Amino acid sequence: MKRTYYSSDLVHEQKGKTVTVAGWVEDVRLLGSLAFLTLRDSRGVCQLVAKKQELPADLFDAICRSPRQSSVIAQGVLKESKAKNVSVEIQVQQFRILTEAVHPLPLDPTGRVDANTDKRLDARALDLRNPENLAIFRIRHFALQGIRKSLINHGFLEVNTAKIIGQAAEGGANLFSLDYFGKKGYLAQSPQLYKEQLTMALDRVFEIASFFRAEKSHTRRHLNEFTSVDIEAAFADEDDVMKILEEMVRTTIDEIREKCAEELAILI
Amino acid sequence: MKRTYYSSDLVHEQKGKTVTVAGWVEDVRLLGSLAFLTLRDSRGVCQLVAKKQELPADLFDAICRSPRQSSVIAQGVLKESKAKNVSVEIQVQQFRILTEAVHPLPLDPTGRVDANTDKRLDARALDLRNPENLAIFRIRHFALQGIRKSLINHGFLEVNTAKIIGQAAEGGANLFSLDYFGKKGYLAQSPQLYKEQLTMALDRVFEIASFFRAEKSHTRRHLNEFTSVDIEAAFADEDDVMKILEEMVRTTIDEIREKCAEELAILI
Repeated sequence: MKRTYYSSDLVHEQKGKTVTVAGWVEDVRLLGSLAFLTLRDSRGVCQLVAKKQELPADLFDAICRSPRQSSVIAQGVLKESKAKNVSVEIQVQQFRILTEAVHPLPLDPTGRVDANTDKRLDARALDLRNPENLAIFRIRHFALQGIRKSLINHGFLEVNTAKIIGQAAEGGANLFSLDYFGKKGYLAQSPQLYKEQLTMALDRVFEIASFFRAEKSHTRRHLNEFTSVDIEAAFADEDDVMKILEEMVRTTIDEIREKCAEELAILI
Repeated sequence: MKRTYYSSDLVHEQKGKTVTVAGWVEDVRLLGSLAFLTLRDSRGVCQLVAKKQELPADLFDAICRSPRQSSVIAQGVLKESKAKNVSVEIQVQQFRILTEAVHPLPLDPTGRVDANTDKRLDARALDLRNPENLAIFRIRHFALQGIRKSLINHGFLEVNTAKIIGQAAEGGANLFSLDYFGKKGYLAQSPQLYKEQLTMALDRVFEIASFFRAEKSHTRRHLNEFTSVDIEAAFADEDDVMKILEEMVRTTIDEIREKCAEELAILI
């Protein structure tokens, strides 16, 4: 069995088709001789239906007893669903638990039970299956693509500058220092000096990368390690810069609105 | 005066149009009452022609005496060129030196005179104006976009993982260590552990970022700071991985061939 579809693509497919999905067991409900299994993958959820009289006893049993959050793969026929909220379901023919989740789970990724930050970070893989957290990562991905698309449209070239540096690039910020083969090195707090050299030949450059400031993170907006979007342009004045950055923000918001309607609905 | 065109776009424009270009003086040649100035920008070169009898004496003089590699902006009328190798030229009406280059130059960016690596790194901005170096940075930019395009087509999400870590992610590699507010921290040599957590919810993730190994760079292929292209996929086997990576390499080469014909011609 190999996955052929993500959950979000099933609604667009012809009923009667055999499909294979893979993901994590969110819930199993028994209704007489029927078992309904909600499977979550990175794109959403889908419903699997297992009929006792149509499956070998041990297979039906395995589906009914599969521990929540176990990693599974399932094959079956796509059918219209009679359930409200669900338009299609998969009538299971094959089913395999790839990795069984150990219970009790450290937290509930469906978000019905709250968990504190330490617990969430200790079980981050599980925590990330929470639809809100998934939505944040997906929106973040499309934000990165929107930023890049806009800058490239404005003629910027993507570069990667050194993060271990020999000198501080700007005054003010405290730097993390490290031992660089017996010499003192620092972690870059910005690509400033590199950008200035690059822009004198490449004209317009940008970098999206981690930078570092050795200042304790007093607020969630002041991190000592952060992802920076940095641009530098030659032959430009403040009006050019404002236009570039305004369009970057607008393009990024457009991109997210277009590609992340479901994710925004989850978060807002 | 504000730049309206890059040098590479001029051939596509109507003759008779007033255009403004900005860049660096590569060469000035005097031919009686004519001065020919070769201006390089990040996209290539263009030819400016100044006619003594049509310009104020001090302006013609400034053009003739502009030191090579000075940063300049020029406006004029686009004309067909009679020179071989050049299809269009700009008949200068306005010209301004933005920053005058100090001579003697530390190296010759046209590449006619060789410079050793130390000298090149000391005058990197100038060194990068060498067409071969510009070509490398432009190809590198399109390689990054090709890699990303291919991975996104395969359903991968872009992520940024922590570079300052508390524990080594893999055995074997030596890590750079640093003082993290009194605790010992390390620079990540790979996003391995983060990718594994992320992939258990996001399914397919990739990161393009700097990573670090505290091993002296014995060859040019073994750097202690490098840009890594890292992917991780759930529900995939070795055939899937080979397919993804093969297509990534192919897409990237296609992208470079399509977008960088001139740069490849310079390098090969």
